[in-house]
Amino acid sequence: MVAVGVDLGGTKIMAALVEDGRVVGKAKKSTPRVGTPDDVLDAVAAVVRKADPDGRADLIGIGVPGPVRPGTGVLPVARNLPGWDHEVDVAAGLSRRCDGRRVVVDNDVNVGTLAEVRLGAGVGCDNVLGVFMGTGVGAGLVLDGVLRQGPRGLAGELGHAYVSFRDHDAGEVGRGELEDYAGRRMMEHRARTRHEAGEPTALVDLVGDGRMKSSTWAKALAKDDAVARSIIDEATDAMAAAIASAIALVDLELIVLGGGMAERLGDDFRLALEARIADRAFAGGDAPVRAAALGEVGGAIGAALRATETASDGGAP
Amino acid sequence: MVAVGVDLGGTKIMAALVEDGRVVGKAKKSTPRVGTPDDVLDAVAAVVRKADPDGRADLIGIGVPGPVRPGTGVLPVARNLPGWDHEVDVAAGLSRRCDGRRVVVDNDVNVGTLAEVRLGAGVGCDNVLGVFMGTGVGAGLVLDGVLRQGPRGLAGELGHAYVSFRDHDAGEVGRGELEDYAGRRMMEHRARTRHEAGEPTALVDLVGDGRMKSSTWAKALAKDDAVARSIIDEATDAMAAAIASAIALVDLELIVLGGGMAERLGDDFRLALEARIADRAFAGGDAPVRAAALGEVGGAIGAALRATETASDGGAP
Repeated sequence: MVAVGVDLGGTKIMAALVEDGRVVGKAKKSTPRVGTPDDVLDAVAAVVRKADPDGRADLIGIGVPGPVRPGTGVLPVARNLPGWDHEVDVAAGLSRRCDGRRVVVDNDVNVGTLAEVRLGAGVGCDNVLGVFMGTGVGAGLVLDGVLRQGPRGLAGELGHAYVSFRDHDAGEVGRGELEDYAGRRMMEHRARTRHEAGEPTALVDLVGDGRMKSSTWAKALAKDDAVARSIIDEATDAMAAAIASAIALVDLELIVLGGGMAERLGDDFRLALEARIADRAFAGGDAPVRAAALGEVGGAIGAALRATETASDGGAP
Repeated sequence: MVAVGVDLGGTKIMAALVEDGRVVGKAKKSTPRVGTPDDVLDAVAAVVRKADPDGRADLIGIGVPGPVRPGTGVLPVARNLPGWDHEVDVAAGLSRRCDGRRVVVDNDVNVGTLAEVRLGAGVGCDNVLGVFMGTGVGAGLVLDGVLRQGPRGLAGELGHAYVSFRDHDAGEVGRGELEDYAGRRMMEHRARTRHEAGEPTALVDLVGDGRMKSSTWAKALAKDDAVARSIIDEATDAMAAAIASAIALVDLELIVLGGGMAERLGDDFRLALEARIADRAFAGGDAPVRAAALGEVGGAIGAALRATETASDGGAP
């Protein structure tokens, strides 16, 4: 069976044409930063056509940056997409743009985690948390070998773990959620606030008024920039707290770490995170942190796998 | 089938003689505050004899305050029991003290949650977190109708959720874990620190150098004591953060709230907690908070149910 999988992120849209578990075509494009959900779906359809110009795929799978209403293709809210403050039927909207083909919608990090457990760093493990660091922080949870969706499709939202409860009412620095410390958007906000308060930093020297990318953070760290180092250090602590809490709650064997930020920060970051999780583990309940093995195309592969499996189950989208 | 269930807490030991789902005998005793695990097991055996003086029970179930090594009756560590800093085979030690009868050991809040889902406030719900507030904070997790143990038996340790990651290295006020704000032991520590720094409080007026019990906190709140109110307020925020994080991670339909502190603080506390969870819920993912329905004997009932079910499964303890 041939499927196109799409990974719709806050920064970019990736697509992979997947045939029998192999990637036979790829495409990508920046996510629109302004506009409406219709503009986003137009961009997705364009990437689908680019990855599969001959229209070989029978099915389209898409991973979206928010929780999907169970049993539907509806994405009610997505903080990282422009104008997405109301519910949108992604399955219907994308199908209409793609010759009426069937579209299966799931959360982006759920399908990314599924891909890693099936084909990547999590092969052989039954209790795995996949954590993906990018514009925000997302996660997917596999318990006893099964992807956890939850009764309302909300499972895996580690980015909304409250790691600093006293910051809940603190306003512009967020509400004390993991994303507020370890998501690239809020990390940039913190860096700019410190820069404006008079601290020099390579982060601003490198990009000026432009967006700080994952590579910007890696470059600043390579220069031993103090502001970058302290913000990454705080992100590491916040990640360790949220992951140690998740291990304490459900008991996990493995953490798979992916996403643009984690890839750029590399093994130094991953090993520091692993050590700080171990330091916080209760009663010996730590877990190794492995790098995601499928790279930036993992989410798109997972979306295609999810579509293929859903179709072969005969299940609802 | 007749079983004695024991709930071994940091403060007291409860036992219930359970016959066909009905409680036909009860007993309780204070937990030794000093000594060794042997002293604790002696006290447990005495309570078993008191609840079942004629030795009618074929089986003994016990809920213990820490994670049990899966497939064994071994409790490796228990912060709230005297001298329990090394692993102890509770099943063997208690069986030896009780005429060689079979002993089934599980985590106290796991069995308490099981009892609530089977016979109490959680009947009819498949995705439930049971949270029990006492000396510490414990929890049990039922997902898709099944009690979650985890590959290492560590699931449900909500008390070790990191709700304030910056406090990790803060030393005597704890490590930023939920128990450090919402467990009675650390709440007393905070109250005494504030009293010593010059803040008057009814909490100390009521007990002097004695231990602050759940009733002490309830009485101080009834007097509108400022120190008690602010520490309870902080406990409520910390609980809301940890529970909202748990809902975001696994998606839950219901929170069952029990334990001595929650019972004494009553509906005002429970409803404040419910509202603050809703305030923190991501994408509509809140959950009602119901009071545990089985009272202080729930854990003991659950331990008896767990023993009976394990025996009828023919499973390992």
